[in-house]
Amino acid sequence: MRQTGQNRRENSGAAPDYEAFLRRLADIAADATLPHFRTPIGVDNKSGERFDPVTAADVGAERAIRAAIAAAYPDHGIIGEELGNSHDDADFVWVIDPIDGTRSFIAGVPLWGVLIGLVERGVPRLGVMAQPFTGERFFGDGSAANYEGPGGARKLATRQCARLAEATLFTTSPDLFSPAEQSAYQRVEQKARLARYGLDCYAYCMIAAGFVDAVVEAGLKPFDILPLIPIIEGAGGRVTDWQGNPPPATGQVLATGDARLHDEILELLARQ
Amino acid sequence: MRQTGQNRRENSGAAPDYEAFLRRLADIAADATLPHFRTPIGVDNKSGERFDPVTAADVGAERAIRAAIAAAYPDHGIIGEELGNSHDDADFVWVIDPIDGTRSFIAGVPLWGVLIGLVERGVPRLGVMAQPFTGERFFGDGSAANYEGPGGARKLATRQCARLAEATLFTTSPDLFSPAEQSAYQRVEQKARLARYGLDCYAYCMIAAGFVDAVVEAGLKPFDILPLIPIIEGAGGRVTDWQGNPPPATGQVLATGDARLHDEILELLARQ
Repeated sequence: MRQTGQNRRENSGAAPDYEAFLRRLADIAADATLPHFRTPIGVDNKSGERFDPVTAADVGAERAIRAAIAAAYPDHGIIGEELGNSHDDADFVWVIDPIDGTRSFIAGVPLWGVLIGLVERGVPRLGVMAQPFTGERFFGDGSAANYEGPGGARKLATRQCARLAEATLFTTSPDLFSPAEQSAYQRVEQKARLARYGLDCYAYCMIAAGFVDAVVEAGLKPFDILPLIPIIEGAGGRVTDWQGNPPPATGQVLATGDARLHDEILELLARQ
Repeated sequence: MRQTGQNRRENSGAAPDYEAFLRRLADIAADATLPHFRTPIGVDNKSGERFDPVTAADVGAERAIRAAIAAAYPDHGIIGEELGNSHDDADFVWVIDPIDGTRSFIAGVPLWGVLIGLVERGVPRLGVMAQPFTGERFFGDGSAANYEGPGGARKLATRQCARLAEATLFTTSPDLFSPAEQSAYQRVEQKARLARYGLDCYAYCMIAAGFVDAVVEAGLKPFDILPLIPIIEGAGGRVTDWQGNPPPATGQVLATGDARLHDEILELLARQ
């Protein structure tokens, strides 16, 4: 392996360049997932009840990412969607969803993403969402966020949207809510200017990019949301559960680009 | 303008090369739409009731496409989403939806598409769906269909899927149905292996590509569906209304990749 300045810094006593390492993990994940996209693939049914596809790409990518982390930072923990937790009480824990949006993936739709995040003592510090087919990447460290894509690189910033009546709202599917959550969600959707379904991680990144105002979801796992938090917050947005606490204790997530909108939606979600 | 062999053929007495012309129209549309994607844009509310965004890109692209058609084929008719019908009783009629999926467009989501089709005496003959951000194009002439994208060019072919219980089903949004249509749609969705929302024209193209099995929609206008028919049928699929007749008389559309699945869904849609 070529020893770049960044490699040497990571392997020396100096502060590790986790952002550079995160970029290399995104490269590894892209190499492991994109060749499987839009090819006939076998599909497992993980849960029995709900159709929950797990592809060879999913597991293969997570295995490759975990191996890279274990080699570079053997004392760090890992939480992965497919292969479970290891050392998840470590100070630094990497959180991996190799293909967020597997349903989009198997339907040939380029809105799935590789999610990788670094959590330091419970606080999400760094995150990336990579979409290998479109060549887009969204990075964030909680205080800044940036985009790289076909049109070049730029800073990510949420847009102002003070009121739900002016907001574009996304959720992956209204069928993913419990009945009580469904009622709460409907209170929000009914007041939104425009509500759309089906985007998984891509919708959160469009909040960071300033084209979507809110995402309301439930049933999320840590690896579904933790990598996205530093991107959204770095772009000026806010991410909490439906009570206003840091996710993902409840699995319910509210992400917005404008704190005023966040407060309005929290109030609607809390009503009985 | 440089006179290529194709230009000369179009302007001479030989049979016009409509496919080459369609490609140039797609180029024109890409040039007129992509620069507006992911830029802050003004949004009109066309209908009053439902939020129905019309962007400068939408109208500008249609104007450019119409001008090109009028220059090359002044005796042809045009049906466009934004600027209405002209000579729509002509033998050849071009059908244009400059941005199918304007809601995706304004949310920064690269699943909108330029739809352009050529209808000869009521029969859809040629169609293209172009997604300028991903650089993908789907062409069809009813007997063959092909794809051009970042990974190269290839023939499009639907996949076998004999039963709804094995099918991946898409609809843009369940909210777009009337109550009676909603009931009929639910009968289909409940039997599908996987149902997803939110794709507009992209879902139809994924049928042609063999990754989606069925799309059920209602309220479609001619320009929403006519350009897609030669692509889906050229790839081996089938497109009818909910009674099994050629669309779009009723605005209700069923598109599938496998005729056996088509029959099963038609039967479910017809039940009272």
